[in-house]
Amino acid sequence: MIRGLTRAGVGDIGNDKDFIEKASQYGFQAVDIDPLRLIKQYGIEGSRELLLKYHMQIGCFGIPVDWQSDEATFRQGLQRLIECAAAAADLGVNKCGAYILPSNDQRALPFLIKATKRLRLCAEILGEYNIQLALEFVGSHHLRTQWKYPFIWRLDDTLEWIDMIGSSNVGLLFDSYHWHTNGLNVSDIIKLRRDQIVHVHINDAYDLPIEDLLDHERIYPGDGIIDLVGFLQSLKVIGYEGVVSQEVISSNKNQDALTLLKKTKDAFDYVFAQI
Amino acid sequence: MIRGLTRAGVGDIGNDKDFIEKASQYGFQAVDIDPLRLIKQYGIEGSRELLLKYHMQIGCFGIPVDWQSDEATFRQGLQRLIECAAAAADLGVNKCGAYILPSNDQRALPFLIKATKRLRLCAEILGEYNIQLALEFVGSHHLRTQWKYPFIWRLDDTLEWIDMIGSSNVGLLFDSYHWHTNGLNVSDIIKLRRDQIVHVHINDAYDLPIEDLLDHERIYPGDGIIDLVGFLQSLKVIGYEGVVSQEVISSNKNQDALTLLKKTKDAFDYVFAQI
Amino acid sequence: MIRGLTRAGVGDIGNDKDFIEKASQYGFQAVDIDPLRLIKQYGIEGSRELLLKYHMQIGCFGIPVDWQSDEATFRQGLQRLIECAAAAADLGVNKCGAYILPSNDQRALPFLIKATKRLRLCAEILGEYNIQLALEFVGSHHLRTQWKYPFIWRLDDTLEWIDMIGSSNVGLLFDSYHWHTNGLNVSDIIKLRRDQIVHVHINDAYDLPIEDLLDHERIYPGDGIIDLVGFLQSLKVIGYEGVVSQEVISSNKNQDALTLLKKTKDAFDYVFAQI
Amino acid sequence: MIRGLTRAGVGDIGNDKDFIEKASQYGFQAVDIDPLRLIKQYGIEGSRELLLKYHMQIGCFGIPVDWQSDEATFRQGLQRLIECAAAAADLGVNKCGAYILPSNDQRALPFLIKATKRLRLCAEILGEYNIQLALEFVGSHHLRTQWKYPFIWRLDDTLEWIDMIGSSNVGLLFDSYHWHTNGLNVSDIIKLRRDQIVHVHINDAYDLPIEDLLDHERIYPGDGIIDLVGFLQSLKVIGYEGVVSQEVISSNKNQDALTLLKKTKDAFDYVFAQI
Repeated sequence: MIRGLTRAGVGDIGNDKDFIEKASQYGFQAVDIDPLRLIKQYGIEGSRELLLKYHMQIGCFGIPVDWQSDEATFRQGLQRLIECAAAAADLGVNKCGAYILPSNDQRALPFLIKATKRLRLCAEILGEYNIQLALEFVGSHHLRTQWKYPFIWRLDDTLEWIDMIGSSNVGLLFDSYHWHTNGLNVSDIIKLRRDQIVHVHINDAYDLPIEDLLDHERIYPGDGIIDLVGFLQSLKVIGYEGVVSQEVISSNKNQDALTLLKKTKDAFDYVFAQI
Repeated sequence: MIRGLTRAGVGDIGNDKDFIEKASQYGFQAVDIDPLRLIKQYGIEGSRELLLKYHMQIGCFGIPVDWQSDEATFRQGLQRLIECAAAAADLGVNKCGAYILPSNDQRALPFLIKATKRLRLCAEILGEYNIQLALEFVGSHHLRTQWKYPFIWRLDDTLEWIDMIGSSNVGLLFDSYHWHTNGLNVSDIIKLRRDQIVHVHINDAYDLPIEDLLDHERIYPGDGIIDLVGFLQSLKVIGYEGVVSQEVISSNKNQDALTLLKKTKDAFDYVFAQI
Repeated sequence: MIRGLTRAGVGDIGNDKDFIEKASQYGFQAVDIDPLRLIKQYGIEGSRELLLKYHMQIGCFGIPVDWQSDEATFRQGLQRLIECAAAAADLGVNKCGAYILPSNDQRALPFLIKATKRLRLCAEILGEYNIQLALEFVGSHHLRTQWKYPFIWRLDDTLEWIDMIGSSNVGLLFDSYHWHTNGLNVSDIIKLRRDQIVHVHINDAYDLPIEDLLDHERIYPGDGIIDLVGFLQSLKVIGYEGVVSQEVISSNKNQDALTLLKKTKDAFDYVFAQI
Repeated sequence: MIRGLTRAGVGDIGNDKDFIEKASQYGFQAVDIDPLRLIKQYGIEGSRELLLKYHMQIGCFGIPVDWQSDEATFRQGLQRLIECAAAAADLGVNKCGAYILPSNDQRALPFLIKATKRLRLCAEILGEYNIQLALEFVGSHHLRTQWKYPFIWRLDDTLEWIDMIGSSNVGLLFDSYHWHTNGLNVSDIIKLRRDQIVHVHINDAYDLPIEDLLDHERIYPGDGIIDLVGFLQSLKVIGYEGVVSQEVISSNKNQDALTLLKKTKDAFDYVFAQI
């Protein structure tokens, strides 16, 4: 598996170039950044050279489309999606991620219908650029009732939904936090097929009942109680060999970037040594 | 438009042959019966001759699949579906209907996902036999809370759902009772496209608030307060020229079949004269 | 049916505004022009006012994507397609056309596969903007062998292909010239379903064997031997009520625009009077 | 990878029970037989016990549908397909194979369109039973001109076709003979994704120019010149861990079944030892 970083959990690490350089320095092989923004800064050739110089790949970029909103907003996003997909293809990036909030303010059934049509269209467009779409279910309990109508947050429901969408390039963005807050275990991973996993996030959770875990108070791998070794081992067993990106969404933003990177590196060293 | 009958509202009219004969006698050009059952009774040639003799067509048959149940039951239904579709094709029948209960005992989102996949598969199979699948939304208010989880009962949601299913041979079974209990009017029909309508039911409603109308206490066209002239005129405006079948679901089963047919004929004469 | 004009057969009629004005003056209700170009010239509001002032609609715009070429070119076209679809939606335009050359220089089977995937993606994108994609089969015999590999030119093959593409917003752009060069007659039209026709072109052919008719030497409605009355009557019978655009592709470009418009108006008057 | 046998190349090995018993005796873990026929002979429970007793799985069954023929024949096949799929599901079989002849007597483009629609429908039906459809391209040169119209025989065209079909449960049946007669090498396999391979056949070829190799004169693994070690190693590299079934289609039917099994076992031992 490939060690990856998102910007969540690395503090104020600077611009994309700084991020890539420091990620490399601490032994990471992938960063989750916006390929279009990179190209806008450094050009296609400049971006390729930058990535090559640091033996870095871009793991996954966030879908640049507001697929939950009104029609006009969604349509504007489509234009950005194509630009972004073209940029991704230019840099060899083949994963795009979208998270699914477990509740929202739109009636659940019509929202599912709308979301299905929109995500299918996004997937078809991404497919033209050989990019997979990774859907991330979000387990955090407080978010399930944060908005008026509960939506999808379970692994099994997400898999059925992906199957219903029907585009062959859609799969899971599997985050250890949501695996944990769903109360799942390694046997739930072992049952998956390798091609159902598009991208992986890791981060850890406080030693609290899963009902009390806040989505924006995650902690560093190894600092909490999630069985990350079991999580990654199971993914390995089913054949996942792609990027595993740390994503520590947290309100604690005071620490120094290099200190955090060092801490992250140690955590990855520890976990990866056991799988 | 073509005058049609279902067995609901014609009393104990006898076997399929009697039904066809009497329907013809009272000026109807279509009956909604099971083509497979007809063929099992009279053979393919016999059935064709029977229909030809009475200038009768079969309008629409009910989907012979329990698509709401467990996996094993659904799979068994698929076998019947193919048999039935083959029989329909043998008799030139090209519409199959399925009604959607407005609530049920399965969690709404997973149920929508499951139902979508199953109805899509049924539609694909029917498509091979050049048969359209007509989905009937059910507006009756008491049924919306009859079971644990509310499901789809609105026209607009049904149309979005049909679009999401994505098979080009799926459309509406549009019933005047559900149009009425949804509180819709003729302008809601005018906005539809002709190819969104696969089949049409008519029947009438008591002069009660729509919230109090029972699904199984419908009355004969003309006996109630539904604007059936407006209903059919609007369908005509958008180009619908297919079968309009009476379906009077009612607990009142005591009347004589011929009396009911006469009553139905008069009601059709009255309504059709005005459109 | 709605009287429409393309720029083929109206000489040097000036800019889009001139075209709209003169089309209106001669009794036409639709022009086939590029909505994006119109908006770039006059803005969204200005374009709407222009169309409103002359009671003009835009019938159909040409697909702004080179879907037959290499991958990079196709991808660039997608960006334009979204821009153009957004412009079309802003002006209420809901038809986009693509013609299919009856031969080309790519091996037929891989080309069909590639074209299917690309046109399906274009259709899905257009669908988001409520735009239909009209595929035009091209019957002209000399073009069937113009390039190395024969491709699709028959009505029935095109219909099967459209069905295979599987997007519900794809249909025919039905041109009288290709109907004629395919040796078809009115009974071939009567068999079609109304929803299979997205857009219609008319123009006429010299009194020559169909094998000798050149694609770029068409003549004005009424000047040739195509049974345009039968053509349009049959389309009316199956319920087509949309735009019928004249498209006289011809090497003869010398005549005055107004003379040509007058001629066209007379021809339309003559033909439309008989249907 | 799992050692498998088809009935091609094992002589007159007896009924399905004999086949299973002897396959087990010679160290094979899978047989490619018809699950419906097995159940018709031994019942569901009996079949399960039989397979369990010999630690045998069924690898892949042939599609019981004539998808190349006329409409009536195809429709009859659908009924069998569902029966067969249900039987397969009862025995845990999840692969169904169909070979694609490299030429036939139907015009290529309409045939591709028809075949796409039919195989997609078959795939959708199989998908309901969690069964994958494996399409086998056939490279044998003499078959490319055996019938009037050349069709698909290349790996890359087949992959594009599978992508166009658009059902996520369709992939390759990859046969070493067709890999060889296509003039491909290991690098062509390395480029594939694991989820593109559904099933694998091995057999060997005479030391002749690939143009002269006959489809029905294949030889036993190890007896010819195909680089089977490279073939299987490459499949292993991309993660294929499924069944590899021998299929020696040959006119030589005289040898004793057990002698052939022994020969096959030795060949598998030799090849598998090197991968």
